[in-house]
Amino acid sequence: MGSGALGCYYGARLVRAGANVVFLMRSDLPAVRERGLRVRLPEEEFAIERLQAEATPEAIGPCDLVIVALKTTANGEFTRLIRPLLDERTAILTLQNGLGSDEELARVFGAERVMGGLCFICVNRTAPGEIVCLQPGSLALGEFGRPVSERLRTVAELFTRSGVKCQTGDNLAALRWRKLVWNVPFNGLAIVAGRITTDEILARPELECEVRGLMAEVIGSAARLGYAMPDDLIDQQIALTRPMGPYRPSSLIDFQAGREVEVEEIWGEPLRRARAAGAEVPKLGMLYALLKRLTSRGQ
Amino acid sequence: MGSGALGCYYGARLVRAGANVVFLMRSDLPAVRERGLRVRLPEEEFAIERLQAEATPEAIGPCDLVIVALKTTANGEFTRLIRPLLDERTAILTLQNGLGSDEELARVFGAERVMGGLCFICVNRTAPGEIVCLQPGSLALGEFGRPVSERLRTVAELFTRSGVKCQTGDNLAALRWRKLVWNVPFNGLAIVAGRITTDEILARPELECEVRGLMAEVIGSAARLGYAMPDDLIDQQIALTRPMGPYRPSSLIDFQAGREVEVEEIWGEPLRRARAAGAEVPKLGMLYALLKRLTSRGQ
Repeated sequence: MGSGALGCYYGARLVRAGANVVFLMRSDLPAVRERGLRVRLPEEEFAIERLQAEATPEAIGPCDLVIVALKTTANGEFTRLIRPLLDERTAILTLQNGLGSDEELARVFGAERVMGGLCFICVNRTAPGEIVCLQPGSLALGEFGRPVSERLRTVAELFTRSGVKCQTGDNLAALRWRKLVWNVPFNGLAIVAGRITTDEILARPELECEVRGLMAEVIGSAARLGYAMPDDLIDQQIALTRPMGPYRPSSLIDFQAGREVEVEEIWGEPLRRARAAGAEVPKLGMLYALLKRLTSRGQ
Repeated sequence: MGSGALGCYYGARLVRAGANVVFLMRSDLPAVRERGLRVRLPEEEFAIERLQAEATPEAIGPCDLVIVALKTTANGEFTRLIRPLLDERTAILTLQNGLGSDEELARVFGAERVMGGLCFICVNRTAPGEIVCLQPGSLALGEFGRPVSERLRTVAELFTRSGVKCQTGDNLAALRWRKLVWNVPFNGLAIVAGRITTDEILARPELECEVRGLMAEVIGSAARLGYAMPDDLIDQQIALTRPMGPYRPSSLIDFQAGREVEVEEIWGEPLRRARAAGAEVPKLGMLYALLKRLTSRGQ
């Protein structure tokens, strides 16, 4: 569901591992039906010549598992897009960024269906059906509001078998905050500091200082909400980012392509939850205000 | 000294009041020598047909008072530009923005010479010799590190006689922080929030919230340094700004014209002094980091 870079990458891996996958696609459908998918990785390349892809959920019908890889800006379409894919046992796994999608899916389709996944990955779609994965990274899965289940373990094994480094966690919300520690500063500053890549951010001491300050605010907010993180997380995240070179965070790519940026999910909702928990988040507040203005349409 | 919008505006007023003024000019010199200065105000318009203007300080020689209306980004030129204008009694009045110019002038020429002025004014130069003053506002003068002196009162009377609303204060540094309360948020956000005017900033609740947050940081920093400000200052500044309409702060004008922005004087130096005094200035820190990056040349 939602066959952008992320959906196509994981989908292609699952197909290659023998899973019965149907892709819901819009713009890329003709190209993919004709030529399939091609995935380039740092050390290998593979193609899926023939695959099942449809333009509407009705053409797919009920599935065992719906993997949601939509932009969160399309979450208003959940009912229309997902309802036709459900029978009473269908599970839903959202791989979407930020905060809010789990709750929304739970509200619309029932909490018991929902699982979430955090994708620590660099992947871009360079042309219809052409996926370039710069860093396969890893996937972290959790049940919504519940500890790891048998069902979640089965999904994790499927991903592992398909070549995705995959782990599970008992606290999905904590995993989401963990990912925000990177996304909030880098996705945000890449846009507001003048459309720059992660290496340009880290090249300036005063911007690196803002990265660290934003990370500290996210970690502090998560701690107030009960999600403690390791003490050295900031240093570790900076150290992981430095060798990534001129990496364009996904929000910058969206912004530069004129697509909607996931402002509410990555900055707005975390900001509101942080404030509600009494956390001090002055930098996050400013970043959100700037991003909201810079990404507003028609301005 | 430095005949941009500000220098020409005050200079023209002083000429009209009968003072013996010589303008130091560069690019506008031929036009001004030929056609003089024309000043448009909300309610009146006046022209100075003939005036004294020179291209070098040597052609002017020693004066009673040097009024410095240079951009602070030219402060490295102080010795070359000002030395030829001094005899042992010459006073120096800097009308420059932000923090640092008083101290620099004092260091180079002696503290006893230095006075400073804060210009609360909206004035633009629309063409060589053409000055448009949207809001004449007021001028606040102070001695550097000393209470009001006889000399300062004489200068204030001269400005008052020339039609400039002028007051004096015993604490120049406090006046400078007072002006930063407006300049820090509006000049800064106008650039980083996507080159917008003050009314566009105040049209968005979350940006107005950032204006208020930045003002609170500046006021808190000033308080730590011993410069207390009135409790209702923030509301009052917002209320004063709202009717200004689509006003472009001077830093935005500089930025859009490709000129250097006074980043260190308006944001960098206040930030360093605030931190040294132990103030919490997370928003100011972020604004400075973004401005430094956005205004850096060749990027």
